Amino acid sequence: MSSANPDLVHAQRGGIVESFHRGALAVVDADGDLVLALGDVDRPIFPRSACKVLQALPLVASGAADAFGLTNEELALACASHGGEPAHTAIAASMLAKAGLDASALECGSHWPYADEAIKALARAGESPTALNNNCSGKHAGFVCVGCLMARHAGREPAEFVRGYIGPGHPVMREVTAALAAATSADLARAPVGTDGCSIPTYAMPLRQLAHGFARVATGVGLSAEHARAAQRLRKAVAAAPFYVGGTGRLDTRLMQRLGERVFCKVGAEGVYCAALPDRGLGLALKMDDGNTARAAEVVLAAAIEALVRLDDDEQVFLRSISDFALVNWNGIEVGRLQASSGLRQALGGRA
Amino acid sequence: MSSANPDLVHAQRGGIVESFHRGALAVVDADGDLVLALGDVDRPIFPRSACKVLQALPLVASGAADAFGLTNEELALACASHGGEPAHTAIAASMLAKAGLDASALECGSHWPYADEAIKALARAGESPTALNNNCSGKHAGFVCVGCLMARHAGREPAEFVRGYIGPGHPVMREVTAALAAATSADLARAPVGTDGCSIPTYAMPLRQLAHGFARVATGVGLSAEHARAAQRLRKAVAAAPFYVGGTGRLDTRLMQRLGERVFCKVGAEGVYCAALPDRGLGLALKMDDGNTARAAEVVLAAAIEALVRLDDDEQVFLRSISDFALVNWNGIEVGRLQASSGLRQALGGRA
Repeated sequence: MSSANPDLVHAQRGGIVESFHRGALAVVDADGDLVLALGDVDRPIFPRSACKVLQALPLVASGAADAFGLTNEELALACASHGGEPAHTAIAASMLAKAGLDASALECGSHWPYADEAIKALARAGESPTALNNNCSGKHAGFVCVGCLMARHAGREPAEFVRGYIGPGHPVMREVTAALAAATSADLARAPVGTDGCSIPTYAMPLRQLAHGFARVATGVGLSAEHARAAQRLRKAVAAAPFYVGGTGRLDTRLMQRLGERVFCKVGAEGVYCAALPDRGLGLALKMDDGNTARAAEVVLAAAIEALVRLDDDEQVFLRSISDFALVNWNGIEVGRLQASSGLRQALGGRA
Repeated sequence: MSSANPDLVHAQRGGIVESFHRGALAVVDADGDLVLALGDVDRPIFPRSACKVLQALPLVASGAADAFGLTNEELALACASHGGEPAHTAIAASMLAKAGLDASALECGSHWPYADEAIKALARAGESPTALNNNCSGKHAGFVCVGCLMARHAGREPAEFVRGYIGPGHPVMREVTAALAAATSADLARAPVGTDGCSIPTYAMPLRQLAHGFARVATGVGLSAEHARAAQRLRKAVAAAPFYVGGTGRLDTRLMQRLGERVFCKVGAEGVYCAALPDRGLGLALKMDDGNTARAAEVVLAAAIEALVRLDDDEQVFLRSISDFALVNWNGIEVGRLQASSGLRQALGGRA
């Protein structure tokens, strides 16, 4: 903890910086070369949900997406941290039904939806959340689909074959981990390994390698032919159905609704963000030291997109509204601003 | 931002520190001498809601608490950031009724309750929150009581006199600001001034001075006789009715239910905590750089209380469950720990 990462986001109030967020950011090209590094991009960090698109590569590459006739909405949900809204749970249920199973196959656990309205609607109906409401239910439904295809090929009973898919030694999870390792070139056998919120393993890796994985998703360069095709199909599915990768009010959804295929981005817990920028052939990965996603990682991502992606004037205004905006109180009075730090702007400035 | 504050809280996962929180902590005696300083305790920070007890001194010192026959529950609510639960809104309404007014006098704005169950209960009933649900409604009801007594003395119509009490120039707010300045010895005329969430002014001051204010609340030393009596009465009211200073599951409530008059503590937005430790004659104030209250400031406070307050074995176990605990995921699996950093423990170690 000796050399501090730079402060990337400032919360201003009354003319001073009230709070600030430090972090690190890596922008990498398809060859793995650093285009920009802020802070320590070599310290291993857990990508958490930011790498879901990499974990979804086997869903397409294995043939499961075709075998079960998955739609863009379903493929987007496989890459999602969704809000648990009715449209999300319906699509997760649909994926499972296409594979011949139901929500009882999910091993991600249950939690109340992220989306405020979905919480209140469940409460009004006197209901409790199920595993379908879990933000990871689409990713897990994708794992189940992969497992069901494996079972079909092996002549095994799908429900029984799939059981325990969250364990690192299960054939499904081995395939998922192999895809993550191949995309990032990270040595996962030696990486710190934790358990993610949804109970699958999460492997720590340097931001530099995580960003490289997203440069490969952006370009296909350095991926196997199957994974390159899978990455492109997943990117296009999310661009076509961005509601399903996040949901109402969620930044991933808002950005991709607006920017289409020019950006594929994905949030992760504990202040992580990753993005693939196909037009620029770049990948980026960032992590806030304090793990703050909503208030910090989102601001850094928006500032980076402003600098790295070709935008028209309206799009620039839209992005700036995310990277620099007024904080208002309960009476609607402007009390301060949340904004990318001048240091971050300067570092990004040469990359616009 | 050049010299970073130390990392005080670690979130561990998979054997590594996944995220961490930097901050500063000042422990001061009644003479204003630093007993312990970690990080920069001279940088001005906004106390936010952590200083509500100082802002409530005029409610007692002016005679309003006696004139309107306020109970311990009502005085505790005047110092509170409460959960907006039915018991809280009822007490806020009662304070206003005793002064002859109602919720229409409140200028704090409305927001959904903090307490999960209160949110769901409102939603189930098809209702929307009112200003009574605002976590600051008790503090504001206290301001209204002060204003109504002033109006009575001046022979003015209370509702009309009270109107605009949130403005820095209003007689009520001038009295509140004077109490804050007297308790902390901060030069508020030269301090950065912001607008708080509930629309009253908030003045930035060094942690050292804020902690001094709480050492004075702990001891009465350095306060006027009226303010010293008021501080003692407010401390005792909160110790007698700790549910009303926070609410279900809130740390202030849990700590004071357990430790009674040995600790008066109060959370503030943006990662601030203050505490008065009467048995030790000390005050403390802390601020997390990143503004994280729930995950960071609470852990530091608990570790500080462990080191500074005489506790029996059960109380030590209770405090340790706040300063070092397992993080579990949606399946109830332990995935890591949130804990005071070893650096914080070491710095506090000599102070036990």
